[in-house]
Amino acid sequence: MKHYLQHDPWNIVEEGFHRDFNEVTESVMSLGNGRLGGRGSFEEKYSGKTMLGNYVAGVYYPDKTRVGWWKNGYPQYFAKVLNAANWIGIDIDIEYETLDLNHCEVRDFRRVLNMEEGYLERSFVARLKSGKEVQVNAKRFCSIVDDEAGAIRYAIKPLNFDAKITITPYIDGDIRNRDANYDETFWDEVRKETAYGEAYIELRTRKTGFHVATGMCVSIEQDGLSIDYQSQPIKYEKYVANRITLDCRQGQETVVYKYAVNLSSLNYDPDTIIKEAHQYIQRITRKGFDKMLFEQKQAWADKWKMNDIVIDGDIAAQQGIRFTIFQLNQTYTGEDERLNIGPKGFTGEKYGGSTYWDTEAYCLPFYLSTADQKVARNLLIYRYKQLGKAIENAQKLGFRAGAALYPMVTMNGEECHNEWEITFEEIHRNGAIAYAIYDYVRYTGDEQYLVDYGLEVLISISRFWSQRVNWSKSKEQYVMLGVTGPNEYENNVNNNWYTNYIAAWTLRYTTEAVAKVKALNPEKYAELIDRIHFREEKELATARQIIDKMYLPQDDQLGVFLQQEGFLDKDLMPVSDIPKGQRPINQHWSWDRILRSCFIKQADVLQGLYFFEDEFDVDTLRRNFDFYEPMTVHESSLSPCVHSIQASKLGMKEKAYEMYLRTARLDLDDYNNDTEDGCHITSMAGTWLAVVKGFGGLRVEDEKLVLSPYCPDNWQALAFKIRFRDMLVQVTTTQRDVTVQNFSTMPITINLHDKDVTIKAESQKTISSKVTA
Amino acid sequence: MKHYLQHDPWNIVEEGFHRDFNEVTESVMSLGNGRLGGRGSFEEKYSGKTMLGNYVAGVYYPDKTRVGWWKNGYPQYFAKVLNAANWIGIDIDIEYETLDLNHCEVRDFRRVLNMEEGYLERSFVARLKSGKEVQVNAKRFCSIVDDEAGAIRYAIKPLNFDAKITITPYIDGDIRNRDANYDETFWDEVRKETAYGEAYIELRTRKTGFHVATGMCVSIEQDGLSIDYQSQPIKYEKYVANRITLDCRQGQETVVYKYAVNLSSLNYDPDTIIKEAHQYIQRITRKGFDKMLFEQKQAWADKWKMNDIVIDGDIAAQQGIRFTIFQLNQTYTGEDERLNIGPKGFTGEKYGGSTYWDTEAYCLPFYLSTADQKVARNLLIYRYKQLGKAIENAQKLGFRAGAALYPMVTMNGEECHNEWEITFEEIHRNGAIAYAIYDYVRYTGDEQYLVDYGLEVLISISRFWSQRVNWSKSKEQYVMLGVTGPNEYENNVNNNWYTNYIAAWTLRYTTEAVAKVKALNPEKYAELIDRIHFREEKELATARQIIDKMYLPQDDQLGVFLQQEGFLDKDLMPVSDIPKGQRPINQHWSWDRILRSCFIKQADVLQGLYFFEDEFDVDTLRRNFDFYEPMTVHESSLSPCVHSIQASKLGMKEKAYEMYLRTARLDLDDYNNDTEDGCHITSMAGTWLAVVKGFGGLRVEDEKLVLSPYCPDNWQALAFKIRFRDMLVQVTTTQRDVTVQNFSTMPITINLHDKDVTIKAESQKTISSKVTA
Repeated sequence: MKHYLQHDPWNIVEEGFHRDFNEVTESVMSLGNGRLGGRGSFEEKYSGKTMLGNYVAGVYYPDKTRVGWWKNGYPQYFAKVLNAANWIGIDIDIEYETLDLNHCEVRDFRRVLNMEEGYLERSFVARLKSGKEVQVNAKRFCSIVDDEAGAIRYAIKPLNFDAKITITPYIDGDIRNRDANYDETFWDEVRKETAYGEAYIELRTRKTGFHVATGMCVSIEQDGLSIDYQSQPIKYEKYVANRITLDCRQGQETVVYKYAVNLSSLNYDPDTIIKEAHQYIQRITRKGFDKMLFEQKQAWADKWKMNDIVIDGDIAAQQGIRFTIFQLNQTYTGEDERLNIGPKGFTGEKYGGSTYWDTEAYCLPFYLSTADQKVARNLLIYRYKQLGKAIENAQKLGFRAGAALYPMVTMNGEECHNEWEITFEEIHRNGAIAYAIYDYVRYTGDEQYLVDYGLEVLISISRFWSQRVNWSKSKEQYVMLGVTGPNEYENNVNNNWYTNYIAAWTLRYTTEAVAKVKALNPEKYAELIDRIHFREEKELATARQIIDKMYLPQDDQLGVFLQQEGFLDKDLMPVSDIPKGQRPINQHWSWDRILRSCFIKQADVLQGLYFFEDEFDVDTLRRNFDFYEPMTVHESSLSPCVHSIQASKLGMKEKAYEMYLRTARLDLDDYNNDTEDGCHITSMAGTWLAVVKGFGGLRVEDEKLVLSPYCPDNWQALAFKIRFRDMLVQVTTTQRDVTVQNFSTMPITINLHDKDVTIKAESQKTISSKVTA
Repeated sequence: MKHYLQHDPWNIVEEGFHRDFNEVTESVMSLGNGRLGGRGSFEEKYSGKTMLGNYVAGVYYPDKTRVGWWKNGYPQYFAKVLNAANWIGIDIDIEYETLDLNHCEVRDFRRVLNMEEGYLERSFVARLKSGKEVQVNAKRFCSIVDDEAGAIRYAIKPLNFDAKITITPYIDGDIRNRDANYDETFWDEVRKETAYGEAYIELRTRKTGFHVATGMCVSIEQDGLSIDYQSQPIKYEKYVANRITLDCRQGQETVVYKYAVNLSSLNYDPDTIIKEAHQYIQRITRKGFDKMLFEQKQAWADKWKMNDIVIDGDIAAQQGIRFTIFQLNQTYTGEDERLNIGPKGFTGEKYGGSTYWDTEAYCLPFYLSTADQKVARNLLIYRYKQLGKAIENAQKLGFRAGAALYPMVTMNGEECHNEWEITFEEIHRNGAIAYAIYDYVRYTGDEQYLVDYGLEVLISISRFWSQRVNWSKSKEQYVMLGVTGPNEYENNVNNNWYTNYIAAWTLRYTTEAVAKVKALNPEKYAELIDRIHFREEKELATARQIIDKMYLPQDDQLGVFLQQEGFLDKDLMPVSDIPKGQRPINQHWSWDRILRSCFIKQADVLQGLYFFEDEFDVDTLRRNFDFYEPMTVHESSLSPCVHSIQASKLGMKEKAYEMYLRTARLDLDDYNNDTEDGCHITSMAGTWLAVVKGFGGLRVEDEKLVLSPYCPDNWQALAFKIRFRDMLVQVTTTQRDVTVQNFSTMPITINLHDKDVTIKAESQKTISSKVTA
């Protein structure tokens, strides 16, 4: 835990330079716009602790797999998010000294991520070894309007000298991934160009052959006026720059504007990509920094108008939830169905791949409630487009006849993870992908999606489940052997309740979806079943058999579902019995000890009761919660949110708040001591869920929005905005009452604290508060 | 399967050069003497497929661990058998051409491993590109008399030309392990020296700092007479040689004798090791090649006298069993308690480490019955000396109070394997180490071993088991969760019958051993328990509780023990149902598919019934054999031998023979297509077991030798020699009768086919044959 960042409702503030935590700050202060982004590093050279990271969405490299011991079925390559050309760099040399905060006295340092307006600002005074003092103010953003561009305003002022200052804005493409398995370089240079104040470089990824053109243009002001300058172009291998030497007077501010673009061959023809970069640069340079920043602020204001959450009376919580919303919006905008939500977004490169089950299980509801319907739809389309690869993936593992197993981690649809207990056995991900279709249709009412895309995915996943179970003669039921559930602190278990349940549920939902699509569009249905050789009668009969006879382990005496068969053989004890100094257990215990202990990384049974809550009564939830919560160590950042939601539902306000706190400031306080690798982007969605589904009680039932909001004890008010179909509503809950404001031009009816309430167009209604007990 | 090697009772013969199989032949024709050894490669340069390998026992390098995903508890380093300086090399240049069989026409090629006398011989005629033809005859051995030396006789004769021939005997220390994780070099040069016809190089391993001095001396004969020659010394980095150019006439044979030594700092002071090498070289050079080879033949004759097995009527089987005995003797001589039996011996470097549970479970009985008692005893002492490391190893995994977990793979007592499901969970190895003590004491009657060493190891292992089980409230029994049994096609299972059984057995045997040692030597006992803080009453009470209440899964209806809990949930089917072309399944199926299938790599339950056969009746064995055998794919080379022994016991002669055949010629026929990596040294002991314990029915009961030999149907006779305490007996069994010859100077009483039979000193007795039904 670290507490060096200031609490502030709209900004993340580092006051004074915290060298040792610089990589943490860089992660937290990352910028992104869905297409490109990078860490909050310095523009000028910094020889201290830093991890430079600039990323271009959708551009990846298949790094050769590294294993200790090969297991049949492992992928040969592992697609990685690529650290790309550094476009932010501006070297500063003052006579014979390089400005490098690692070798200066630094004062008045302040680095601020402005979340309201979407930019990063940094100012400081540096005293060089020679005694010269300079004041710097740098401002940078990745534009969400011109979403392949970024811009920097870098102002430097000599405080106690006159001198020649050399300013070298550059693009450096000689970049490696810190997590490269064999220290390989992933980029080759294709070409480079320099011109007066401009420089371009085109790089190509090895193997995958993506082209990325990065360009920059520099303009300079002194005394508030644009000036002409002498510029010396520099070209090295994978590096282009302009070296500009200026006479600077004491007290005079020199302002460098650096405009940059990153175009990738995902969107441009490689033959003309440098030309396009040139034109793009010209366009944004003409627009200018101030106009770009103005548009950025406007665009962010529009976003906040749709999805801000206001917490009254707890500034740390306010900051945490805004950080969550800000980062999720920076990571994924839903413009492009080829992109997805990487676990680190644009804030780091660890874990490779861009897509985990996190997207469907945690992130989808956020985008459903805060963005246009097409955003969530594009997340589903992403998987639809990768169905072919999922079928190939299942074939590699011995499945047949169109069965699909989506990969655990992917970039382009191919599996890119290689731990057998995860890659091959954490198959519950397939269930989450089916569930996301259900969740989307339930929320949006867009049944046409089933016709056009959804049913095909559901049938393919159902085929997998039908083949993955086997009939146990000894139980006279279907069993599923050798799986790893969401609780990754158990591996290769038999009859994981969550996985068995979601498998049977998928078969059930597929059966319903078949009926629905048949009714909605018999021609399209006929075309589909012909194309994918769906033998309706036979396959649905098998599905029904499995649904009827699926083994779901439970203990009648305790009245709980068993995480997996045999769970009660463990030495059961609460987390509070773990000796001091041994947590997190994953940093203190060997893997076998974790596996045979009763301790749970994230509780799968509770995850299942969250997904399928309509199918269980509250007493069942309470018994399972009381049984599993005390054994859960929450060493997955995806864990506490579900517990918080469940605790809210059970009226356990304190527990709900405690669980909410576990993720609310995970990265801001570097809770797990790993934020330096990047932020936990997908688990941020969990924080949002804890607030909106937990405290807010958001649900959809029978095509209707359901809310049962309450305000945690130490907050004065909580207000959140959500979209639901054609509506935009704001829910404000205090300790006394709840106000729902309808921004729509039509009256709406919602279920509020178990009662139907109608709110007129563009008006609001307040009722007294009630906590579900 | 390959059948290019000739069948011959005493020799392994390659007739004609089989280029594509050269690495297989090199493995099979490896030479060793317990201290050094290497693969059957060529002396002269060979640019084709070859894997050069020369090894010095006990010299290893801790290679940095490579993993895909780190798990807490993995060792940082992984000790590897080191490929050491190449001392066999002799380059031959004929005018401007290098003799390289990869670029010649080769005829009359013949490579023979003479197992009776312990040397490798190779002859051929090569026609160079120029048309020149030379005839070569090379003979090489690793001396078991001068066991740090090897010698080569390399004879070359021009067949159709007179020319200058340049002969360059060399030592090359610029050697890397093919399996190095990061392509690192493990050796540094310390010094090198050359003199007339001599050359020395001293290398040091990085990190571990072992010194190895390798020296050579060359003498040359022409026309049968030793000649003086001009020699040009050559020194490169890590390389020393003497270049000798001779005038050779058509038809004249030039014979090069190369004497070499490898001294290691395990046995010599690094300060004087080069000097020692020099003296050693002088001594053997004075002795001369012919005398050395004569002594070698004598020494091998002595060995064969003690442990030969004669199979009459099946030359392939005869060759197979002699190959087994030959390789086991080449690998381990029991002279040095710091050494052990690597899985590849001196025939390759794969798998790293030198010691697996193979030593205790499979190899020990071979050495017990074929060598002096001290050989087996040294294998036990090896583990005793590593007890401290085993306790540290257990501590790393969270165990306390002197509990010991021996590593899965080791060189110096530290774990050097890193698959969690094996390293942390294949803990049954600890049981095998306890069992070996029992096996040794039972066979030799050496109860003093328990006093001096055995009990301390037993108590430490028992402490591990006592902590590793936990009480299941739901079963009201002790359970053992999260283990991998000998059947590695199941991972992380609960209540593996074999592991639970051997754990309870260890506790039982430890309790008995405590009583025995107390009775034999109360002072030593008191000293021991004080030193290791053994709280006798408390620890034995715990042990008794666990023995009484250990859960051992079984199915009463089928009357079988269950490999692990839940085994009957699997889709049970015989191996014969696996579709054609999908075997071995480990090359065709993904790991998860293997795990959830019913197919067994090696059957743990049958292994347990083999170890503890006195505790089960034959009907129990038969039911379990009939249940498990059909599901066993025998994809471990350690598997078939146990099935063969059990089948023999059950009177299933055909099955016993079928299983015997699976290992009998494993490497000679390259059964699994992997002999090129080296021979399966430890599983060779299994072949011997199948013959002596299976066909021979060798057991020890109540201090008495028990035999119930029979002769497989297609053999005319089987004769094997064994030692038992003071006796040396030969058992000869034909289809009609059994003859036991007593070579001892005392009468002996043995149990032969369930009857006590006394045989007078130095005489024999024949009884009519009977097969146990």
